[in-house]
Amino acid sequence: MLLNTLYLPELREMIASDDREGLRDFCGALHPARVAEFMEGLDAQESWRVLLAADPELQTELFGYLDPQKQTEVVHNVAEAGDQQAISRLVVDMPADDRVDLLYRVDNSVVDELLPLFPRDDRHETLRLLEFPEGTAGSKMTTEVAKLSEKLTVREALEEIAHQSEDLETIFYLYVVDEGGRLQGLVSARQLVVHFRKPDTPIAELMQRDVVTVRANDDQEAVAEKVAAYDFLAIPVVDDERKLLGIITHDDIIDVLRAEATEDAHLAVGVAPLEGGYLDTHWFTLAWKRGMWLAILFFAALLTALALRNYEGDFQKAAWLVLFIPLVISSGGNSGSQSATLVIRGLTDGDVRLGDWRRVLKRELVMGLCLGTTLATAGYFCAVLLTRSALPEGADAVAIAAESPPPTMGEVLVVPITLLLVVLCGTLSGGVLPLVFQRLGLDPALMSNALVAGIIDIAGIIIYMTVAVWMVSGLG
Amino acid sequence: MLLNTLYLPELREMIASDDREGLRDFCGALHPARVAEFMEGLDAQESWRVLLAADPELQTELFGYLDPQKQTEVVHNVAEAGDQQAISRLVVDMPADDRVDLLYRVDNSVVDELLPLFPRDDRHETLRLLEFPEGTAGSKMTTEVAKLSEKLTVREALEEIAHQSEDLETIFYLYVVDEGGRLQGLVSARQLVVHFRKPDTPIAELMQRDVVTVRANDDQEAVAEKVAAYDFLAIPVVDDERKLLGIITHDDIIDVLRAEATEDAHLAVGVAPLEGGYLDTHWFTLAWKRGMWLAILFFAALLTALALRNYEGDFQKAAWLVLFIPLVISSGGNSGSQSATLVIRGLTDGDVRLGDWRRVLKRELVMGLCLGTTLATAGYFCAVLLTRSALPEGADAVAIAAESPPPTMGEVLVVPITLLLVVLCGTLSGGVLPLVFQRLGLDPALMSNALVAGIIDIAGIIIYMTVAVWMVSGLG
Repeated sequence: MLLNTLYLPELREMIASDDREGLRDFCGALHPARVAEFMEGLDAQESWRVLLAADPELQTELFGYLDPQKQTEVVHNVAEAGDQQAISRLVVDMPADDRVDLLYRVDNSVVDELLPLFPRDDRHETLRLLEFPEGTAGSKMTTEVAKLSEKLTVREALEEIAHQSEDLETIFYLYVVDEGGRLQGLVSARQLVVHFRKPDTPIAELMQRDVVTVRANDDQEAVAEKVAAYDFLAIPVVDDERKLLGIITHDDIIDVLRAEATEDAHLAVGVAPLEGGYLDTHWFTLAWKRGMWLAILFFAALLTALALRNYEGDFQKAAWLVLFIPLVISSGGNSGSQSATLVIRGLTDGDVRLGDWRRVLKRELVMGLCLGTTLATAGYFCAVLLTRSALPEGADAVAIAAESPPPTMGEVLVVPITLLLVVLCGTLSGGVLPLVFQRLGLDPALMSNALVAGIIDIAGIIIYMTVAVWMVSGLG
Repeated sequence: MLLNTLYLPELREMIASDDREGLRDFCGALHPARVAEFMEGLDAQESWRVLLAADPELQTELFGYLDPQKQTEVVHNVAEAGDQQAISRLVVDMPADDRVDLLYRVDNSVVDELLPLFPRDDRHETLRLLEFPEGTAGSKMTTEVAKLSEKLTVREALEEIAHQSEDLETIFYLYVVDEGGRLQGLVSARQLVVHFRKPDTPIAELMQRDVVTVRANDDQEAVAEKVAAYDFLAIPVVDDERKLLGIITHDDIIDVLRAEATEDAHLAVGVAPLEGGYLDTHWFTLAWKRGMWLAILFFAALLTALALRNYEGDFQKAAWLVLFIPLVISSGGNSGSQSATLVIRGLTDGDVRLGDWRRVLKRELVMGLCLGTTLATAGYFCAVLLTRSALPEGADAVAIAAESPPPTMGEVLVVPITLLLVVLCGTLSGGVLPLVFQRLGLDPALMSNALVAGIIDIAGIIIYMTVAVWMVSGLG
C-alpha cells in the first residue's frame, strides 16, 4: 500500500489558510475511510484541524478510520494542548469497543484526565470494559446492541429499532431478552423486513432460539474461529447467567484474524508477539522480543559445536567432510520447517486434527522418502564432482592430499545417505512436534520453524558423523 | 478442533434403522453449522442419507456447511450412484459463489453431467462465473444481489425486498441501479428500517453515491484488503461500464484472508501454494510443491560447499574452526528470517510501506548491532571454553594438537567478530530484500525465510573464513 498523497498539498494549503469550509466539503465528499486515507500524510496537529472542520456527525467516524497510531497521537497532542473537553467528546462518541481499544493505547495519565469528562453512563461502561484483559472477547465487544423484548410484534420491533438505531453499531441481528436481560433468542433485520407485510406477527414466532454465544473471558482467537466457521456477522457475549453483555462484530473479527496471522508468522521465526506494528514498536522492546528467542536458538546451535568437537580428529583425516556440513543441516532444516508449517497451518485452518496423527506420520514418511531420495541423488553427483575434481588454484593441493586423501566413490556415499536420513528426520519431527505441542495444550505455533530447524541441526550433525565414521576408512 | 463425535452413534443408528423422522428432527433442532459439525464423522454416503431426511429447505444450507472435501465426495458419490437429478437440485440451490467453488473442485465429467440438469438461467450464470479464473473477484462473487430502481420510495423498497429476499444471500446493502443495470448508489437495510416511519421518502434521497467497487478481474487478496480497510459487509463487483455483476460478502472475505495467511506461511518456508488442505492434497502434488523449492534451496546450499572448498587446507591447520560453522550460519539465518518476516507481515498489514525503507534500514542496523553484540559476547566465552578445555576422552588429543594447535585467546576472536558481522548481514538483507521484491512488483512473501537463510548461509561462510584467514596465523 502506497501512502496516498494525492490531495496532501491541497489539504495542507487549506489548513494553512484556515479554509474551514473547504475542509468541511472535502471531508463530506467521499467515504470517510477514503478521506482518512488521504489524511495519512498529515501529522497529529494537522489531522486535528481537519477533524475540527468536518461536520460534527462525521468527526467521530473519520477519526475512527485513522490508523491506531495516529489516533493515539492525536489524543495525546490535543490533551497536551489543554483541549480535554473536545477530545473527550470525540472519544466518547466512538463505538464502545473502538473507544476501549484506543484507551488501552493512550497513556494512563491522559485516560485519567478524559474519563471524568465522559457522561456518567459512558464512563461506567468504559471502566467496565477496560477491566477485561486485552485479547478476551470482553475487550473486543461493543455494548451498543439492539435488544428487544420478546413480547413485541414485527411492527413494534421495527418501530423500536428505528428509535434505538442511532446508538447502534449494527442492526443485522436483533437480540431478544427477557426482563432480567437474559438472552432468549435472535431475529435478523432480514426477517423483520421479509415480514414487513405481516406486521402483526409476534417476533417470538420468528425468533431463533438456539443462539451460539461466547463468554466475556473467552480467548479472542477462539471467538474469531467460531464466527468464521458459522459465517456470522456478529456473535453475542454473555455472562455466566446468560445475561447479554454485548456483541462482537464482523469487522473486529477480521482484525483479530489478521492479528493472529501476524502473530503466528512472527512466532514461526522466533519473534515474541508484538503489541503494535513493526515500525511502531520501540527498538528496545523489539530487540528484547527477538533477542530472547535468538538466544535460545543460539544455545541450541552451540550444541552442534559440542557435537562436532568429538570429531575434530576425523576432519583432519578427511577434510572433505567439512564441505557438506552446511548442506546437510540446511536440507534437514528446510524440509523440517516445511512440514512444521504445513501441520501448524492445517491445525489453525481446521484441516488437521489431533486424531489425524497417523495420517500425518504416514504422509511425512512418504514425503521424507520421496524428497530425501531426490536430494540424495542430486547430492551424490554433486559430491563426486566437488571432491574429485581438481582443487581450486592456489590451494596447497599436494600437502592436503598427503594428509587427507580425497574420498573413494564408495566413501562419497556418506553424503547421499546422510541427506536421506536427515530429510526423513526433518519431515517426521516437523510433522509430529506441532501435534505433540497441541496435545500438551500448548500453542503449536510455538514449535516454530526456527526451533524445528535448531533440533534438526543437531540431529543432522550426529547423523552425518555417525555415517561418516561407519563408511570412511580410518575414522572413529 | 477435535472431531465432534458426540451424536455420531445416534446418527449412525438412525441411518441404519432408516429412521427418517428422527433424522429430520435432529437436522432441524440446531443451527445448521452445528448439525454439519456433528455430521463430520460420517462418510459421504451416510451424509447423503442424513441430508435426504432433512427438511427440503434445510438440505442446501446443511450441505453448504459441510467441509469442502466432504461436499465434493458427496457429489461424486451420488453422481456415481446415478442420482444426478437429486444432487443437481441441491447444488443449484446453493448461493452462486459457493456453487461455483464446489464445481471448481468436482471432476469435469461430473460437472458436464450436472450442468444440463440446471434450470436455464442458473446454468448460464454458473457457466459465466466458471469463466472467471480462480483467485479473482469474479470467482468469489454471488450474483444474487438486492437491486432496486432509484425511483422507489422507502415503502416500495421494503415491499420489493420482502419480495426478492428469498433468493438473496444478504440484504445488508441494497444496490440502486439505473435502467441499464449500472450502479448508481447504495442504501443499507438499516437506513430503510430507520426510515420505516417516513415511508414516502424517495430512496434516491438516502442513497450513498460514492460507492467503493471492485472489478471482476481484480485479485481476491486486494479485494479482501479493501473490505477489511473499509469495514464493509459486502463489496459490489462491476464491469468496465460500471454495470453491477454481483457482490462479494464478508464470509467470503474471511475465507480469502485465511487462505492468504496460509499461503504466505507456506511461501515463507518454501512450499508453493496448495489448492486444498494439507491432508487433502495428493502426496505427489505435495511432494512436487515442496520439492521444487527444496531443490532451489539445495543448490543455494551447494554454493556453501563450493565456498568451503577454497579453505580445505585451512581446516587442517586450524581444525577448531569447523566447530563453529553451524553456529555461525544458523545465527545469521535466524536473525535474517526474523527481519524478513517482520517486514513482510508489516507490508501485508499496511504498517510498513515502500517509502519507509530508510526507517526499516535504520531499525535493522540498530537491531543487527544490538543482537549481534549480544550473541558475539556470549559466543566469545563459549568459544574460549570449547577450544581451550580438555578434548573429550577417546579423541586422539596429542596427535590433533601437533598438527592443529588450539587457538590463542586472540585467535578465538574470529568467532565473535564473525557473529556480529553475520547477524548484521542477516538483519539488513532480511529487512531490505522484501522491500526490493515489493518494489519490483513481486510478492514480497516470495522472499521467503528459507531463501533469506540460504543467502545468509553463503555470506556467513565467506565472512567466517575471511575473518579467520585474516586473524589466525598460518592460514590463507
